[in-house]
Amino acid sequence: NSQLKIFSLNSNNPLAQEIAQEMGVELGKSSVKHFSDGEVQISIEESIRGCDVFIVQSTSAPVNEHLMELLIMVDAVKRASARTVNVVMPYYGYARQDRKAKAREPITAKLVANLLETAGATRVIVLDLHAPQIQGFFDILIDHLMAVPLLSDYFKSKGIPEDEIVVVSPDHGGVTRARKMAERLKAPIAIIDKRRPKPNVAEVMNIVGNVDGKVAILIDDIIDTAGTITIGADALRAAGAKEVYACCSHPVLSGPAIERIENSSIKELVVTNTIQLPDEKKSPKITELSVAKLMADAISRVYENKSVSTLFD
Amino acid sequence: NSQLKIFSLNSNNPLAQEIAQEMGVELGKSSVKHFSDGEVQISIEESIRGCDVFIVQSTSAPVNEHLMELLIMVDAVKRASARTVNVVMPYYGYARQDRKAKAREPITAKLVANLLETAGATRVIVLDLHAPQIQGFFDILIDHLMAVPLLSDYFKSKGIPEDEIVVVSPDHGGVTRARKMAERLKAPIAIIDKRRPKPNVAEVMNIVGNVDGKVAILIDDIIDTAGTITIGADALRAAGAKEVYACCSHPVLSGPAIERIENSSIKELVVTNTIQLPDEKKSPKITELSVAKLMADAISRVYENKSVSTLFD
Ligand SMILES: Nc1ncnc2c1ncn2[C@@H]1O[C@H](COP(=O)(O)O)[C@@H](O)[C@H]1O
Ligand SMILES: Nc1ncnc2c1ncn2[C@@H]1O[C@H](COP(=O)(O)O)[C@@H](O)[C@H]1O
Repeated sequence: NSQLKIFSLNSNNPLAQEIAQEMGVELGKSSVKHFSDGEVQISIEESIRGCDVFIVQSTSAPVNEHLMELLIMVDAVKRASARTVNVVMPYYGYARQDRKAKAREPITAKLVANLLETAGATRVIVLDLHAPQIQGFFDILIDHLMAVPLLSDYFKSKGIPEDEIVVVSPDHGGVTRARKMAERLKAPIAIIDKRRPKPNVAEVMNIVGNVDGKVAILIDDIIDTAGTITIGADALRAAGAKEVYACCSHPVLSGPAIERIENSSIKELVVTNTIQLPDEKKSPKITELSVAKLMADAISRVYENKSVSTLFD
Repeated sequence: NSQLKIFSLNSNNPLAQEIAQEMGVELGKSSVKHFSDGEVQISIEESIRGCDVFIVQSTSAPVNEHLMELLIMVDAVKRASARTVNVVMPYYGYARQDRKAKAREPITAKLVANLLETAGATRVIVLDLHAPQIQGFFDILIDHLMAVPLLSDYFKSKGIPEDEIVVVSPDHGGVTRARKMAERLKAPIAIIDKRRPKPNVAEVMNIVGNVDGKVAILIDDIIDTAGTITIGADALRAAGAKEVYACCSHPVLSGPAIERIENSSIKELVVTNTIQLPDEKKSPKITELSVAKLMADAISRVYENKSVSTLFD
């Protein structure tokens, strides 16, 4: 078998370190710096000839910086005669630009897929794509992991009585995800149904399903400005939920997110570390769970040519 | 004939405006903003179906931001059914990473070419690539403009007696460029020959050619931190040059550049506006010449399917 090498770029070095530790290997030696004019300067500081290389990088903010780092690293790894160039993207940026919602818009999620292939990626490992259809944007192999088991296990460990829980999707797009968690928690689901009665009139929140007297767990893939989730939490409380938890795979948490969460009726927000939270985004209300073991298992299985989907079946 | 449309992105809007003005057209309506998380949000606000579209963008600093803006715009223009997608890059970033100088380095200049093609560019117009070989990195058509005529005309207009001028290349790589200018100014050339006598011993500057009592004009393609050019100017003065001018196509001017230039023996630095100079990089010593007419002529000729190289023959 050829040798395994894992490299980290700059978006989420703690996660990459943790993945390497889980796997009992050292991270590959490389340096990612900038020239005086800001151009990315990458050098790989050990031989990777014939190796199976895994590059860990989330394309979180600053997204263009992190994406270009990744593309340049893929180019360098390919030209250094690696056997395979595997891109491990715990968070896939630009995933929400996955279709033309209006005329003359780009489809940046597809562009990113094409750019990765052009740079020389031979396989991609991702987690909870905003739309699972993005898998089909790639002509190379893609493994799609899920955080639902991790998030569900955390809520199980809280010891909330099963018959008190209701898992809530904040919109119609997230129902499949909510159902997966509900199955694991043996709980029913509810859906927040936003309707705009007339143009330029505020949205009305209808809760489809029973939440009265229940512990509601809101689940989403991305929490960005946290508007949807905090307004949803208020609507759940108004409908009689006695406690509201929220969780997501990718804590983008931009703009007013932290303030909104801190001032909201959400008791606890549970996120994963696909995106590294800077200190100013840490909050006593936010619990971070690590995807390191999940990613490490996926890397091992890809390396050993075993099925990855069994990891969360 | 199909319709011509010119769009500007964010790196050099004044130049794009000037190009449109030269051509007697309005810039196309588009907006390039950011979502709350920093992802680029582009929308094209007029129909471009069947049009020949020209997108003006220099990949100057912040290079990754400007490059991603460009790639996403190319994607949007392509998907909006433009007939041709022409990328006008007055400054081509990452051009110095054009080969593996050491083992396991990326060749980012080639990667950028591939990314542009993948996004959907059908033709590229550039000016003074750091290495003309980068033309060969593209499989699509590329037009390569030169600033030497513009720079030469400026020095001609100064009325320095022809027999007093010597055009100087700051290194061996730039001799062809210096010769082109020397021909236009009917002047001889000189070359600065840097040698390191032993490892870890300071470089010695030898001037190949006669500069004694002359007005020396240093010419380079890019001036970045301005180390080479300011040390070169001192060496020319030490060798008897009575005045030293410097010029370049692309004023990158990063880090200590402005300070070095202001404190140097360079009398005047002449640059073009391929890169927009922010206010803090303006200096009484720096003269900016506009490439707008040159770029406008090139765009017209590409649009009319005429030869571009005649522009500077
Ligand atoms: N980074 C972003 N932040 C906020 N909205 C986005 C972002 N990228 C794309 N969008 C928009 O979000 C919508 C897709 O979201 P969704 O309906 O949840 O799939 C599209 O209309 C996009 O224009
Ligand atoms: N943005 C940059 N700033 C400074 N040096 C660079 C940059 N990009 C590449 N280089 C280096 O510059 C060298 C090429 O410059 P040259 O010899 O003038 O063609 C290579 O060794 C590159 O590693």
